[in-house]
Amino acid sequence: MKQNYMFQLEFKVRDYECDLQGIVNNANYQHFYEHTRHEFLLANDISFAQLHDEGVELVVARATMAFKTPLHSRESFLSVLNMRQEGMRYIFDQKIFRLPDMVLCNSARFDSVATIHGKLGTLPLLDDFVKRMTEKQNDEKV
Amino acid sequence: MKQNYMFQLEFKVRDYECDLQGIVNNANYQHFYEHTRHEFLLANDISFAQLHDEGVELVVARATMAFKTPLHSRESFLSVLNMRQEGMRYIFDQKIFRLPDMVLCNSARFDSVATIHGKLGTLPLLDDFVKRMTEKQNDEKV
Amino acid sequence: MKQNYMFQLEFKVRDYECDLQGIVNNANYQHFYEHTRHEFLLANDISFAQLHDEGVELVVARATMAFKTPLHSRESFLSVLNMRQEGMRYIFDQKIFRLPDMVLCNSARFDSVATIHGKLGTLPLLDDFVKRMTEKQNDEKV
Amino acid sequence: MKQNYMFQLEFKVRDYECDLQGIVNNANYQHFYEHTRHEFLLANDISFAQLHDEGVELVVARATMAFKTPLHSRESFLSVLNMRQEGMRYIFDQKIFRLPDMVLCNSARFDSVATIHGKLGTLPLLDDFVKRMTEKQNDEKV
Repeated sequence: MKQNYMFQLEFKVRDYECDLQGIVNNANYQHFYEHTRHEFLLANDISFAQLHDEGVELVVARATMAFKTPLHSRESFLSVLNMRQEGMRYIFDQKIFRLPDMVLCNSARFDSVATIHGKLGTLPLLDDFVKRMTEKQNDEKV
Repeated sequence: MKQNYMFQLEFKVRDYECDLQGIVNNANYQHFYEHTRHEFLLANDISFAQLHDEGVELVVARATMAFKTPLHSRESFLSVLNMRQEGMRYIFDQKIFRLPDMVLCNSARFDSVATIHGKLGTLPLLDDFVKRMTEKQNDEKV
Repeated sequence: MKQNYMFQLEFKVRDYECDLQGIVNNANYQHFYEHTRHEFLLANDISFAQLHDEGVELVVARATMAFKTPLHSRESFLSVLNMRQEGMRYIFDQKIFRLPDMVLCNSARFDSVATIHGKLGTLPLLDDFVKRMTEKQNDEKV
Repeated sequence: MKQNYMFQLEFKVRDYECDLQGIVNNANYQHFYEHTRHEFLLANDISFAQLHDEGVELVVARATMAFKTPLHSRESFLSVLNMRQEGMRYIFDQKIFRLPDMVLCNSARFDSVATIHGKLGTLPLLDDFVKRMTEKQNDEKV
């Protein structure tokens, strides 16, 4: 069975993202992952700015990243994402693959929580969204 | 006559600020200069946040930087600043010297303008401040 | 006469590039411009890594940037570039336009110099390159 | 019993480290932690540059960060560190506390591995170092 993802985004390493060792500095993976999450939500009409205006914040509570193969200057890569819900947590499972050989560079999990006017909660809008995305993904797998 | 400055701040290069060549990436000088300007204003009780709440923004309109000697990983440096007024512009003359040998690494000029509720203007508060700082500096030079 | 450029590259603002005011932090323009220069040279088979291996460094000696209109989160923009030679200096005239309305956001000039085994010099390879690019550009203007 | 750490370093948030929400962007915590590890090793005469020259690289294999309380513009914070060994892994347990009230902002664990001329291994130099630091810490706890 072919692996499918809810969202994927292509990047190209920029020289200023590399450090003394000529490889992408570890902190930049967080940037790539964050940008991918934001683009994913926006592509599905969920806007941080709009949530914010309604007193809702979606914040990362926990991040885990496994650094497998370093990315070098000018390499292209694919950032892929799945989202699921676990109780109060919205979990993003994310991976970065080098292009074109699809070597796994980084594997991560970001646990985020929603606050509504400062109080921890779940968001019907997000709950529905996760359900819809999961169903769509399962359909595509068949 | 000894050169004196309105403000100076010491930094130490962090590894993640260096790029492939093992030297501080050019864009970071802008960060160092910006941080120095903000600390200078705050040290003199002029807060961006407070100005912002009163509808005032102080924004950089023009930046010129001359790159003289590159900074390397772990070197310390001194960021110095003078401020003056030229018509509607508040000008920051800034320099970065390597420590302890005081070799000039970077020399810059940042022209900033103030907007009050979106309209270009001068700020009596800032005009007075520049006058006061200049007099204080001249006194110290004697 | 339509303005033409030697190179242009499209970007999209990423949230982490924006600061407290919700606009792209000034230092990031240097990043965008640097990435554009590197991509321009690479697209024309001039590699920094290769130059470096031959003892040649092309470094920025002076940067001037005029900040016209701030870029906001998620906006797309076009980074354009021309290159010319002035004595020992290789000058990059660069601009950033917001997309799709082509409002000028930033206008910049980067003066770079070449060092060959640490000594300032000109590079026949680069001199020829600039001449070739200029002729090509003039042809296209007719 | 008072908690003690092998190393601690004080920082002050810089405005350009904050994002749209006015809080430190998550990726910067990785920068703060990295800088703390490097300063810790250097303070104990273990230099990355020297290791590198001997064909040794110490790289992060896995990072876990729990985001507890966001840091805001201009706040100061204390970055603390302990190091231990677990088989082939050198583990850094790191925390960031807001100053002066010592509220826990971030809690992290970085697993690093050593490669010697590209092959995974342990470093007698580092093994001894960890043992020495642990004994010193236990002595101080009594």
